[in-house]
Amino acid sequence: MAVYVFKFGGTSVGSVERIKAVAEKVKAAHDKGDQLVVVLSAMSGETNRLTDLAMQVQQAPVSREMDVLLSTGEQVTVALLSMALQELGCPARSYTGSQVRIETDSTHTKARITHIDDAKIKADLNAGKVVVVAGFQGVDEHGNITTLGRGGSDTTAVALAAALKADECHIYTDVDGVYTTDPRVEPNARRLDKITFEEMLEMSSLGSKVLQIRSVEFAGKYNVALRVLSSFSEGRGTLITYEESEVEQALISGIAFNKDEAKLTITGVPDIPGAASKILGPIADANIEIDMIIQNVADDATTDFTFTVHRNDFDKAKDILTCTCRELGAGAVTTDNRIVKVSIVGVGMRSHAGIASKMFKALADEAINIKMIATSEIKISVVVDEKYLELAVRALHAAFELDKDPKVTQS
Amino acid sequence: MAVYVFKFGGTSVGSVERIKAVAEKVKAAHDKGDQLVVVLSAMSGETNRLTDLAMQVQQAPVSREMDVLLSTGEQVTVALLSMALQELGCPARSYTGSQVRIETDSTHTKARITHIDDAKIKADLNAGKVVVVAGFQGVDEHGNITTLGRGGSDTTAVALAAALKADECHIYTDVDGVYTTDPRVEPNARRLDKITFEEMLEMSSLGSKVLQIRSVEFAGKYNVALRVLSSFSEGRGTLITYEESEVEQALISGIAFNKDEAKLTITGVPDIPGAASKILGPIADANIEIDMIIQNVADDATTDFTFTVHRNDFDKAKDILTCTCRELGAGAVTTDNRIVKVSIVGVGMRSHAGIASKMFKALADEAINIKMIATSEIKISVVVDEKYLELAVRALHAAFELDKDPKVTQS
Repeated sequence: MAVYVFKFGGTSVGSVERIKAVAEKVKAAHDKGDQLVVVLSAMSGETNRLTDLAMQVQQAPVSREMDVLLSTGEQVTVALLSMALQELGCPARSYTGSQVRIETDSTHTKARITHIDDAKIKADLNAGKVVVVAGFQGVDEHGNITTLGRGGSDTTAVALAAALKADECHIYTDVDGVYTTDPRVEPNARRLDKITFEEMLEMSSLGSKVLQIRSVEFAGKYNVALRVLSSFSEGRGTLITYEESEVEQALISGIAFNKDEAKLTITGVPDIPGAASKILGPIADANIEIDMIIQNVADDATTDFTFTVHRNDFDKAKDILTCTCRELGAGAVTTDNRIVKVSIVGVGMRSHAGIASKMFKALADEAINIKMIATSEIKISVVVDEKYLELAVRALHAAFELDKDPKVTQS
Repeated sequence: MAVYVFKFGGTSVGSVERIKAVAEKVKAAHDKGDQLVVVLSAMSGETNRLTDLAMQVQQAPVSREMDVLLSTGEQVTVALLSMALQELGCPARSYTGSQVRIETDSTHTKARITHIDDAKIKADLNAGKVVVVAGFQGVDEHGNITTLGRGGSDTTAVALAAALKADECHIYTDVDGVYTTDPRVEPNARRLDKITFEEMLEMSSLGSKVLQIRSVEFAGKYNVALRVLSSFSEGRGTLITYEESEVEQALISGIAFNKDEAKLTITGVPDIPGAASKILGPIADANIEIDMIIQNVADDATTDFTFTVHRNDFDKAKDILTCTCRELGAGAVTTDNRIVKVSIVGVGMRSHAGIASKMFKALADEAINIKMIATSEIKISVVVDEKYLELAVRALHAAFELDKDPKVTQS
């Protein structure tokens, strides 16, 4: 008898009909004899509705009360799913975060789980009940309701799976798994049966958003096997595992891209100690996150410095950098916000040489000019002109034969 | 420094604007230096919206889950009011029933309060905070969320007032107090400054619904001084007190009426022991509540038996009584569902003779025929043809000079 934690997001429980469909899915799994904990988000739109109400009352709503307010969203869905399951003859019981109880610190609206009391859940599971838990919420040591922030339901599911030592944690979404790249860009994109946590982290942070990064990190830390599946269809989805040996032995697993970046360069910076921090300090002070950083020595006395930021922060970053340029007596600021970052990700590149040159050749063959390069142990990223996005992704997808099942094509 | 419990119903918190208005009212009271606990219902319409969702999922929703679902309604309003108060610079903190904690038995959807832990509330009050509590809900000994049933927010307010030994419990509604009768029937109806609990119970059960009967009974039991006031205007409202001596020394305090009754008579019943139970037993078995009962001996061997039921139960009661009539070998069944019950209520009638005859004379002067009479210690009720409702109420209102202030007109 296996123990599973299933998590369904807001779209999956967005209407009475969909809640009933989730109940059918859960009942079918329960009928197989497995023990099931189901974690739910609020109905899609509900969190926004409640936030709007709060904003009408208070421009900057008190965070403690915001948590009291928002936590009602999941309380509604767990009650309704529990009813729907019992209507199907499947014994079920709902729990709020406080009831479980899922203890957190007191950082309202973005609390962190500190402890889960699994006694009630285990008793219900052993009594043959499906346990339905409100995601996204917990309770602090003083009994205050807390929430884990957006995407917190994934975290709840992973934390429960860790506490219960569940066999797998299933994250049901509107996609049927993790793909080698975005199928809207490359129709030959293939669903991966397995992917490592490290690869998933790189894929998520690079824009192939399937799961919240925090929940993936959390799952990796506690060795929780995550599986991404579709709420709306059958299929095995993609297993995200911490066992590298279990994964398909491909050179790379996928191609991620990010269209939200902009590039800024400051040239002719005096090459003295502390120049980098003088350039990036004011950017960080303005709460602008920096992604890639490259520093080239132009000549003996000066250096060029390039970095990328989110496009939303582009104008602000440009203003700050222009000031810094004057203060440092540097040459000039040049910018480009019509760029994309394309990355190949795979644990396979650890043990295979020549991946980078294969990547650069594939891009060169299509006459795609590379503007920046950054590498990590399992990822190589390049920045190219945004007009080349589709071409670059498809060229790399073909070069690394991602459309083919590696179990068949490789020895 | 006085301690008050304020309760606002669903209409009073039915929109963001109204919640802000409630916050202004509460802040004004807090600024006077009093300690305040505010009990809220769900926004008007919200309980129905949630019930509709549940009914779409399950024809007869599981009561435990219904309570989880419905309790979110008050959780939303307490969060929003707490925000609104803090926006006005008034320190405030919200509590769900579980958080307080308001302990109840495990009778879901109509639980009874068994214990209130006032430690957190008292600590907050002593720290100068307004405490905002979700009405209608509690928690059982196993940590399950319970609700007290419709009107339960009044009960929450009274129970908190009793636990905190509050000076007064203010019930804010859409009327500005208890009137001598319904002002829509008698424009000269006068707001009462005070009324006893006993009178209030008789007025409520007779159709002048201002408060839930259960909360009035509860208030009487625990000597909680209730005051009924308007959410939407200023004024002192009506104090409902258990001290008979405090009340205006009028003969009667008010005139209640009930348009929802129907009368059934069975004639020629053999006058033998057990006849009454043979007649009323099957009616009670069908869960039909009986209001007035009159038995007249018609001759030596037979008796006539008349009773009233709610109009909704009229057809069912008539069918049952027709069967009973055959079984008992009684004469016939006659019915009348175009009747109203009009009652005069007042603790003053205990110490004054001649009230009944004054009432009957006032009706006779208007040629109103009395079909049934029933009396209790502080109430006399008559059943008359429904077309005489307004005439009867106005005649009695004038006869007992209810439009005049008794402190001025009586010695």
